[in-house]
Amino acid sequence: MNVDEKYFKLISKRERAIFEGAITMGALFHQFIGTPISYKTVDGIEKAIKEAMELQPCINEVEIIINREMLRQIQNEFQYVSLSGDMLDIKVFSEYEGHIAVIRMKFVEELQYPLMYVEDVN
Amino acid sequence: MNVDEKYFKLISKRERAIFEGAITMGALFHQFIGTPISYKTVDGIEKAIKEAMELQPCINEVEIIINREMLRQIQNEFQYVSLSGDMLDIKVFSEYEGHIAVIRMKFVEELQYPLMYVEDVN
Amino acid sequence: MNVDEKYFKLISKRERAIFEGAITMGALFHQFIGTPISYKTVDGIEKAIKEAMELQPCINEVEIIINREMLRQIQNEFQYVSLSGDMLDIKVFSEYEGHIAVIRMKFVEELQYPLMYVEDVN
Amino acid sequence: MNVDEKYFKLISKRERAIFEGAITMGALFHQFIGTPISYKTVDGIEKAIKEAMELQPCINEVEIIINREMLRQIQNEFQYVSLSGDMLDIKVFSEYEGHIAVIRMKFVEELQYPLMYVEDVN
Repeated sequence: MNVDEKYFKLISKRERAIFEGAITMGALFHQFIGTPISYKTVDGIEKAIKEAMELQPCINEVEIIINREMLRQIQNEFQYVSLSGDMLDIKVFSEYEGHIAVIRMKFVEELQYPLMYVEDVN
Repeated sequence: MNVDEKYFKLISKRERAIFEGAITMGALFHQFIGTPISYKTVDGIEKAIKEAMELQPCINEVEIIINREMLRQIQNEFQYVSLSGDMLDIKVFSEYEGHIAVIRMKFVEELQYPLMYVEDVN
Repeated sequence: MNVDEKYFKLISKRERAIFEGAITMGALFHQFIGTPISYKTVDGIEKAIKEAMELQPCINEVEIIINREMLRQIQNEFQYVSLSGDMLDIKVFSEYEGHIAVIRMKFVEELQYPLMYVEDVN
Repeated sequence: MNVDEKYFKLISKRERAIFEGAITMGALFHQFIGTPISYKTVDGIEKAIKEAMELQPCINEVEIIINREMLRQIQNEFQYVSLSGDMLDIKVFSEYEGHIAVIRMKFVEELQYPLMYVEDVN
């Protein structure tokens, strides 16, 4: 079966790149929010999230930065926290036949919200 | 702040509708997969998932059908299972300034995969 | 197969009640943290979480209260937030052959942590 | 504050070890089920899950084995799947003041269920 012809004939190549990047961003957030995390485990979990989400269709690369400063300041006696949206800065690079979309998520202080948006697309 | 002007100026209104619908579909799947479910709880969880995901930006409506036949056939002694992708048929209706995208997810037997695609868009 | 004899012969009935309640509390937290929620959807999601977690082995009842005051104060322009540990107060009642354990989770300000503990057991 | 005296005075040291191990097992399952996974990413995600869950209170060690054979046999055209309970074999070693509990989860074919149980405790 040709998946592209059967299921994506209504949209352009550029729209397909945007579509796949957006799915991966929504998926990433809701899969990993809540994960126990600390300053000493942050490198490994970033790498695992990156590798997991790069498996999804049309995803070239995922860049994820979890805020070290927030992890350094954990003051509870258990020395870890649950991963939350205000710690995350993520770029998802999706590509479909030459069109590349860069989907970004970062916590926007002014909105008090982890905004997902299109940072670049050609 | 005008979020649309600042963060979405690179894409068209139609692309915005596709973008927001795709985020919600990815989010829905990865938030709720794994939830304990049975034939007797399916109505309530469908409604809760629908209401949760309709909160997201630009989402007009979410239709979600969890396969009753699969729930009826649960044979383990615990009488419930974890929600999985092959039980789901979902439509997300997203709208941005007159453009409506219908994002669909269903399990495609031929692909052995819960495919997310664009079913309709204007 | 007799599951109890084969897999739980090392522990007492009371310990079994504690064990099953603890599993359900850990499961509940990590399944539903991150769910989009607002003041208008809170009743439905509480009910769905309760019904889902009451499916698990030995669980008699789950009481879940999501903090309405925090939902009322949402100030971002999207009018919803992701469910987080500081909003939750949960009791899981688990029973095994006459022994009832009450497992509680609440956010303890002094600890800055959503603590899970044993509130009662006989 | 002395958390142990205030919140755990009703249970024995042995029960505490069982309690904390059970919470972590329930948490692990519901946090990571649904994660995209393939044969090439399995080592990294196993390590990240292990490190995340070892952060939780009283957890000495987590051993997690994701079934390579099942990953090798993925036949869909996307070359990855969502992590599911039938792929997992997990041991959580929890300790409280000299008492060690080994909580195990594995998929029991006869039950068609990923059973969590107490494999050892002293």
